Amino acid sequence: MTISMHALTAPVFVRMFSNLLGWLDKAEAHAAARKFDVNNYLGLRLAPDMLPFTRQVQIASDAAKGCMARLAGVEMPKWEDNEATLDELRARVRKTIDYVNSFTAAQLDGSESREIRVPRRTSEPLVFTGEDFVKHYTLPNLYFHLTTAYALLRHGGVEIGKADFLGGR
Amino acid sequence: MTISMHALTAPVFVRMFSNLLGWLDKAEAHAAARKFDVNNYLGLRLAPDMLPFTRQVQIASDAAKGCMARLAGVEMPKWEDNEATLDELRARVRKTIDYVNSFTAAQLDGSESREIRVPRRTSEPLVFTGEDFVKHYTLPNLYFHLTTAYALLRHGGVEIGKADFLGGR
Repeated sequence: MTISMHALTAPVFVRMFSNLLGWLDKAEAHAAARKFDVNNYLGLRLAPDMLPFTRQVQIASDAAKGCMARLAGVEMPKWEDNEATLDELRARVRKTIDYVNSFTAAQLDGSESREIRVPRRTSEPLVFTGEDFVKHYTLPNLYFHLTTAYALLRHGGVEIGKADFLGGR
Repeated sequence: MTISMHALTAPVFVRMFSNLLGWLDKAEAHAAARKFDVNNYLGLRLAPDMLPFTRQVQIASDAAKGCMARLAGVEMPKWEDNEATLDELRARVRKTIDYVNSFTAAQLDGSESREIRVPRRTSEPLVFTGEDFVKHYTLPNLYFHLTTAYALLRHGGVEIGKADFLGGR
């Protein structure tokens, strides 16, 4: 009558980052058809005081990486956040998928009740149970940044729709 | 070592719609300070072929309502989608929270393996297990529309940030 922590996280991350690869393909096709540099998307922002496309992708990637590492209790790899082209962003997304896939379900067993601490630069760390960390921090963060990335492409003329967002069929 | 279907859905919905009420309050305060009609937000779109703010809220509401009803196997109430003011949207959000809170955890027990069918207007119904319905349909849909609603307010000058999106502290 229940769902495992691994089932709640890894397949969701893999599906959503696979979907994101599809949006990037459509962005490239759109830029090619209109004859502009697809890398122009990387600096787009929804508002001048919001983060640009590249950072939305990087933060979504970090949400998945951090979730898997924290739930499994392993050290988190440091990734440089130096992607400057669409191809480099694609590689970051693929690296994220590979990292998520490197965990076994058994590594996350029991993590729903483990204490998870998320350090913050300017204030006390956030402290969650593993379950709340996934439900109330990781998933909303992940979807927030992926939806914002989607909205930037959509607003920038890329022909993507809800089916591209949800994927899986 | 697992999470129940109720724990994965109801508290997430209640938190996110409570957060949304906070964004609406900040939108009202912003409009009052700038002396414009807060209801001007209701028709905003991120792109001319995307749905306006009001529909984003209504669809997010429907995602939560439909999820609870389908998982519990009860008939879904029909809501009119006739909200035309910020106050009416607030009432819709509160009605959504009340509806989610009307379900007990026991009503959702076992729903992770039940077959869930989501009818579509122009094609065959989507068919999921309850678990996949929550993970790969309800939650991405919910966050997609809530993030789009957030982005519209944020783009429209409302002073909301990630803490308002995540809520809970």
